[in-house]
Amino acid sequence: MASVPSVSYSITVRLEVPAGGKAVSQITHVVENAGGIVTALDVNTAGHEKLRIDVTIATRDTEHAEAIAAALETIDDISIHKVSDRTFLMHLGGKIEMQSKVPLRNRDELSMAYTPGVARVSLAIARNPEDVRRLTIKRNSVAVVTDGSAVLGLGNIGPEAALPVMEGKAALFKRFAGIDAWPICLDTQDTDEIVRTVQILAPAFGGINLEDISAPRCFEVERRLRELLDIPVFHDDQHGTAICVLAALTNALRVVGKDIGQVRIAMSGAGAAGSAILRLLLHAGARNVVVCDFYGAVHKGRADMDSSLRWIADHTNAEGYSGDLRGAVKGADVFVGVSAPGILNGDDIATMAGDAIVFALANPEPEVSPDEAREHAAVVATGRSDYPNQINNVLAFPGVFRGLLDAQADGVDQTMLLAAAKALAEVVTDGELGPNYIVPSVFHPDVTTRVAGAVREAAGGRPRTEA
Amino acid sequence: MASVPSVSYSITVRLEVPAGGKAVSQITHVVENAGGIVTALDVNTAGHEKLRIDVTIATRDTEHAEAIAAALETIDDISIHKVSDRTFLMHLGGKIEMQSKVPLRNRDELSMAYTPGVARVSLAIARNPEDVRRLTIKRNSVAVVTDGSAVLGLGNIGPEAALPVMEGKAALFKRFAGIDAWPICLDTQDTDEIVRTVQILAPAFGGINLEDISAPRCFEVERRLRELLDIPVFHDDQHGTAICVLAALTNALRVVGKDIGQVRIAMSGAGAAGSAILRLLLHAGARNVVVCDFYGAVHKGRADMDSSLRWIADHTNAEGYSGDLRGAVKGADVFVGVSAPGILNGDDIATMAGDAIVFALANPEPEVSPDEAREHAAVVATGRSDYPNQINNVLAFPGVFRGLLDAQADGVDQTMLLAAAKALAEVVTDGELGPNYIVPSVFHPDVTTRVAGAVREAAGGRPRTEA
Repeated sequence: MASVPSVSYSITVRLEVPAGGKAVSQITHVVENAGGIVTALDVNTAGHEKLRIDVTIATRDTEHAEAIAAALETIDDISIHKVSDRTFLMHLGGKIEMQSKVPLRNRDELSMAYTPGVARVSLAIARNPEDVRRLTIKRNSVAVVTDGSAVLGLGNIGPEAALPVMEGKAALFKRFAGIDAWPICLDTQDTDEIVRTVQILAPAFGGINLEDISAPRCFEVERRLRELLDIPVFHDDQHGTAICVLAALTNALRVVGKDIGQVRIAMSGAGAAGSAILRLLLHAGARNVVVCDFYGAVHKGRADMDSSLRWIADHTNAEGYSGDLRGAVKGADVFVGVSAPGILNGDDIATMAGDAIVFALANPEPEVSPDEAREHAAVVATGRSDYPNQINNVLAFPGVFRGLLDAQADGVDQTMLLAAAKALAEVVTDGELGPNYIVPSVFHPDVTTRVAGAVREAAGGRPRTEA
Repeated sequence: MASVPSVSYSITVRLEVPAGGKAVSQITHVVENAGGIVTALDVNTAGHEKLRIDVTIATRDTEHAEAIAAALETIDDISIHKVSDRTFLMHLGGKIEMQSKVPLRNRDELSMAYTPGVARVSLAIARNPEDVRRLTIKRNSVAVVTDGSAVLGLGNIGPEAALPVMEGKAALFKRFAGIDAWPICLDTQDTDEIVRTVQILAPAFGGINLEDISAPRCFEVERRLRELLDIPVFHDDQHGTAICVLAALTNALRVVGKDIGQVRIAMSGAGAAGSAILRLLLHAGARNVVVCDFYGAVHKGRADMDSSLRWIADHTNAEGYSGDLRGAVKGADVFVGVSAPGILNGDDIATMAGDAIVFALANPEPEVSPDEAREHAAVVATGRSDYPNQINNVLAFPGVFRGLLDAQADGVDQTMLLAAAKALAEVVTDGELGPNYIVPSVFHPDVTTRVAGAVREAAGGRPRTEA
C-alpha cells in the first residue's frame, strides 16, 4: 500500500530567500512536485532584502522528508537554515508533568499540605486503611507499566525507548478520562520480577495498566497480579483491543443483520490480542470460531501446543479443521486479523460468505488491503486512521479505568469487558450506523462516559461522587 | 511546652443563628474563651430570620477543636450544621495530579503524540540511549520512594499511610524547583526487595529521593542503589538534613566568630540524620565531635556496636569520652540534637562554652526548650516553624535535585552536598546575618537557584539549557 504524507512525519524548514525574487512562489511548487504537502507557510522579513520563511510540510517518512529538503535546496538563491521534525519537537523534554493541586503560597498552606498538618492525615489512614482512597491520589491514579518487550510494532526495544509511548498513554488517560496515570518502565523482563515489582509498587495506585508486554509472558504476569492485588489489573493490548473488536463486530453484525451466535468467524493471530479477543467473543456468544496462527489452524490434534494454544483448541474449531488461513476464511462470515501484513488478498475475501465482515487490524499494514477487501466484503475495519472504521484502543481503556476507579473496583472481569463493549457499540445510533460507521470517533464526547458508566455498574459501584 | 492554636488544626464550623439576636456577637467571644482563634467569619443570609455563618477557627489539636465546637453549641438558639477540618479538606482526593504538556485536540495531534508518530521517537532512543534525557520526562522526573517504615515522627505506619506525605513532598519538589516527582510507596520493608524494586523501576526517572526509610536499613538501601544506578540516589532524611544543619552551623559560627575546625561539637542522635550530619560536618572540617545515643557517648571501647556506630567511634571522640550526653555537652561550643524530646534543660546549656550554639531539632518537641536554651546560648535553632531559625529540609532538597537533574548527574557525593550547604549559607548576607537569622526563609526567592547552581557546578554540569 503506498503511504501518503502524514503529520506524524511533518517537518518545518526555515529558509531565507531574496525578497524580490521568484523563490517564494517556487517553494510550494517544489514541495508538491516532490510529493509533500505544504500545511503552513509563515513569512517574516529578515532585513530589507531577505525574507525568512518557515514552511511546514507533511511528508511520507524520514527519507521523503530529507528528499524534500534537498529539493528545496535547488531553488536559486535559497538558503536552508534549519529543518525541524515537528513530532520530535513535540516530544522534547517529555509529554507529561506533575502538578500540585494545592496552593503552597505561604507558611499556613505548607503547614497543612506537609508537616505538621499531613501527619494527622497519615494517622487517619493508618487507623482506617480505606481512607487511602479518600485522602490520597490512589482514587484516581493508574500505573502504566511496561517492560519494553513488545512496544507498538517495534518489538523488544527496552524500557527507556518505551517511555515516549507510556507518556503518550498517560496523556491519553488524562485527556479522555481525567485519570492521573504515570509511566513505570521496568528494567527487567523476568516474569517473576515483573510480578513482584508491580505488587510492591501497587499501594499508591488505584489500577494497573499493563502495556506492550510480549506474549506469552503477559498472560502469566496479568493472571498472577490479578490474584495478588486488590486493584484492577488490565493488559490493554489484550482487553482494550478485545472490547473494541467486540463493539465493532456487534455493530457490523447490526449492519448485515447477522447474529453472533450463528456466524462463522475466522481469526488470524493467537498472541496477546488474539487470545483476548477470542475469549471475549466466546463470552459474548460466538460459537463457531477457527483461530489460525503462523502454522495454520489451531485444532485439538496439533502437536507442541502451549497452554494458551491448548485452551484455544479446546474452545474453538469443533470441526477439527487443520488447514491454513485461506481455507479457514473460505465461507466464513467474519474475518478478524491481529497478525501480520498482507497475508490475504481480495480473492480470499471473495471466497467468504455473503455480506462478509473483514477486520484487518495488523498495523500499519493490514492483513489484506482494505481497498481490495472492500470490493468483496460488506464491512471493512482496520487499525489505521486513514480508513473508515478505525479500531482504536483509545475508545475503550479510558472509560474502562474511569469506571473501575469510580467503582473502587478490586478487580476486572469478563462481565465488565462485555459491558464496556456493549456500551461502546451503543454509542452508534441506528440512524448513524452504516458500513463505514461501526465505531464512534475517538473524539465523540459520549464514549468515555458511556463506557465508564457501564463498567462502573458491572463492577457494582455507584456513580462517582466527590467526598 | 504548651502548644498554640495552629492552622494545621484549623476547623470551619457552619452554624445558623437568629438574624435578630445577639448570637453573632457571642461567637468570637465563646471561641476565644475556649482558647481558639477565629481566623475568618463568613456570614450569609439563610431566609429572612436566620443567618448562616461559616466560622474558621485555629485550634491546638483535635480534642481542642471538639471542645470549641461543643462550646459553640451552648450559645442560645444556635444550631451547628457541619464541622469541617480544613487540613483534611485540603487532602481530599490527593494533592497532586498528572498533566499532559501536549495538546490532544485533534487527530493530527494524537498522531504525533501517540501512534504512529511516537514510534519514531522510541526508535531514536533505542538507537541512541542518551536521547532518553532529551525526548522524555526522565530529564526532569524524580521518584519519591518510601517503604513507610519511618514516616515523620509517626514511625512504621506502612506505604498507604505514608502516601499523603510523599504527595506533599512531590508538591514541594514542583513548587520550589519545577521538578516532576511521583510517589512510589513500596509494599515491602525487606532491604533486598527495596533495592531490587527501585533498580527495576529506575529507567523512567532522572533521580531517586528516598524518604522516611528507617535506619539502619536506609544506609544499605542507599549505598547499594548508588552502586547499581546511573542516576543520583539521595535519602533526604539524611543528606537534606545534613546540608541544612551544616549551612545553619556555618552561619551560626559566623555570628559568634568561631571556626568549624576549632569548635567542640556534642551531638545527640546516631540514626539516619545523625550519622549523615556527622559525615558532612567532618567533610566540612569539624575535628572535635562527640556523638551520643540512647546509651551515652559512642567511643571505641563500647561493646555491641554495629558498622554504623563503629564508623562513628573511629572518626570522633579522640579523647575516648565514655559518659552521658550531659557530660558531653559540658564545655562544648555546639550542640546538635536529632534525637528525642526534652533530654536536656537550661542548666545543661549553661555548662556549655561561651557563645554556645544549640540546634535542638527533634520535632515537634525539641531536645531542650528553645526558650530555656536561649537564656544561655548565643544562637538557637529548632525544626519548628514557630521559632526563629527553623532547620527545614525544604531549604535543600529542591535545589539539590534541580542541580543534579540539570547536570544530568549520574550520582551525588559529599562534595556536592558541601557545595549545597555553602551556597545555602551564603544566601544570608552579612547585613542580614544575626542570632535569629542564620538560615533564609523557605520562601526566599534565591534559595533553590543558588543551591541548584552550586550542585550543578560541583557535579560538573553546565547551566540548564532547553534543547
